[in-house]
Amino acid sequence: MEKLYEGKAKIVYKAQDPDKVVIYFKDEATAFNAQKKDVIEGKGVINNKISSIFFQILEKHGIPTHFVKQLSDREMLAYKTQIIPVEVVVRNLATGSIVKRLGIPEKTPFNPPLIEFYLKNDQLGDPIICYEHILALNLANDQEIKTIKELAFKVNQILKDILIKHDIILVDFKLEFGKKEDGNIVVADEISPDTCRFWDAKTGERMDKDRFRLNLGDLAKFYEEVLRRIENEKD
Amino acid sequence: MEKLYEGKAKIVYKAQDPDKVVIYFKDEATAFNAQKKDVIEGKGVINNKISSIFFQILEKHGIPTHFVKQLSDREMLAYKTQIIPVEVVVRNLATGSIVKRLGIPEKTPFNPPLIEFYLKNDQLGDPIICYEHILALNLANDQEIKTIKELAFKVNQILKDILIKHDIILVDFKLEFGKKEDGNIVVADEISPDTCRFWDAKTGERMDKDRFRLNLGDLAKFYEEVLRRIENEKD
Ligand SMILES: Nc1ncnc2c1ncn2[C@@H]1O[C@H](COP(=O)(O)OP(=O)(O)OP(=O)(O)O)[C@@H](O)[C@H]1O
Ligand SMILES: Nc1ncnc2c1ncn2[C@@H]1O[C@H](COP(=O)(O)OP(=O)(O)OP(=O)(O)O)[C@@H](O)[C@H]1O
Ligand SMILES: [Mg+2]
Ligand SMILES: [Mg+2]
Repeated sequence: MEKLYEGKAKIVYKAQDPDKVVIYFKDEATAFNAQKKDVIEGKGVINNKISSIFFQILEKHGIPTHFVKQLSDREMLAYKTQIIPVEVVVRNLATGSIVKRLGIPEKTPFNPPLIEFYLKNDQLGDPIICYEHILALNLANDQEIKTIKELAFKVNQILKDILIKHDIILVDFKLEFGKKEDGNIVVADEISPDTCRFWDAKTGERMDKDRFRLNLGDLAKFYEEVLRRIENEKD
Repeated sequence: MEKLYEGKAKIVYKAQDPDKVVIYFKDEATAFNAQKKDVIEGKGVINNKISSIFFQILEKHGIPTHFVKQLSDREMLAYKTQIIPVEVVVRNLATGSIVKRLGIPEKTPFNPPLIEFYLKNDQLGDPIICYEHILALNLANDQEIKTIKELAFKVNQILKDILIKHDIILVDFKLEFGKKEDGNIVVADEISPDTCRFWDAKTGERMDKDRFRLNLGDLAKFYEEVLRRIENEKD
């Protein structure tokens, strides 16, 4: 297959169908803008499975996504999109960067959930941007930003409600949106413990990439546990 | 007079009238979150004069401000306000922090002007925030943010148009807004070469605090020149 792009965690290949891509999930883990790196065996397989399940759940709830189907352990077939270079973060509870940046106490709840935009640019360290910058930099237009915000809030509500049934708190997560060839905006990239914060509702244990960021160990074990809990939700 | 607050560039005193304050303009100059400091003789006197002129111009154009009158060389009488802890920046051309932060080429014009919000918190280094953070942190409500944005754009248009007549380009500036006891939101603090970027339209020379930030010297001379050019505009 012809490689279109190799990122830190995934490789995107051309698919047979010209309007689709094959996304290959690697085992590489990176954090702090790739200053911290490791290989965690099996991570790619688990993230592909979890992502596929989440995308299927979202589609079932009427959210447009790039997901077509899971092709193999590490491969997902998806619609080819032009990625809007804005990482969209939704926060239900304050933790991580925002706590330091704005001096908000850890675990402060956001009601309504807080939406944030970051410019997808590794060289610049993914700086935070606002609605006004998205327009000024021509990253998306007003209507597209409205669509993105609406979809992000809906995704949050859907996933939060399902996860809590399985004793997982959806603390925050990052979405990427892409424009399909037909012009429609869809949820793209991945939705996995690499891109979400999941806390065990009973024990408070972290079940996400913070285990890697904070050197807590047992990453694959906790990712597996997330998968085990949500496995039957796609049906 | 009873001191209410001493900042880096000004001191705020209680006025006789309980709904007013006396703002005393000091000669202290600071930059880079007060890591760079100096005293520039006469700066306070010039900034008080320039600020007073700008506030009078704005009032004449129907913009509500905290300005009552200039009391002396270094003192301004103003309405006492509860300052909304958000620094509002309006940019006509890209320069300074935004160039590095977002990788935008120097002097890129913003059409419409770009408005940005920064949390007024020295300890946190005045981090940039968005509409959503202002709501989440309860710094202002939706209607207040709308008012602030509208006023900021109007201030920009008024000052830009007047300054260009005197061969000064208004590149960007920072405003603070305060709530008066009657609940009305007004432009507060100061509007001066300490808080604006002014470029000589003919020579490109900097006529603002960047002379201090960049060690270009002759700060008071250029501030005086700004004053000389706009002096008759208040009438
Ligand atoms: N449906 C899609 N069509 C096209 N590109 C996609 C699609 N879904 C995801 N991508 C892009 O594929 C890449 C996936 O690679 P990976 O996540 O490893 O990148 P990364 O190292 O995180 O770097 P980046 O900062 O570009 O995301 C990302 O750039 C992502 O935006
Ligand atoms: N009309 C007003 N009523 C009350 N406070 C005011 C008014 N106008 C300005 N202020 C406040 O007075 C202070 C002026 O001091 P100065 O500008 O030196 O502070 P600073 O060192 O810049 O620190 P800060 O970060 O608080 O602005 C600021 O905190 C400003 O917000
Ligand atoms: Mg990525
Ligand atoms: Mg100040």
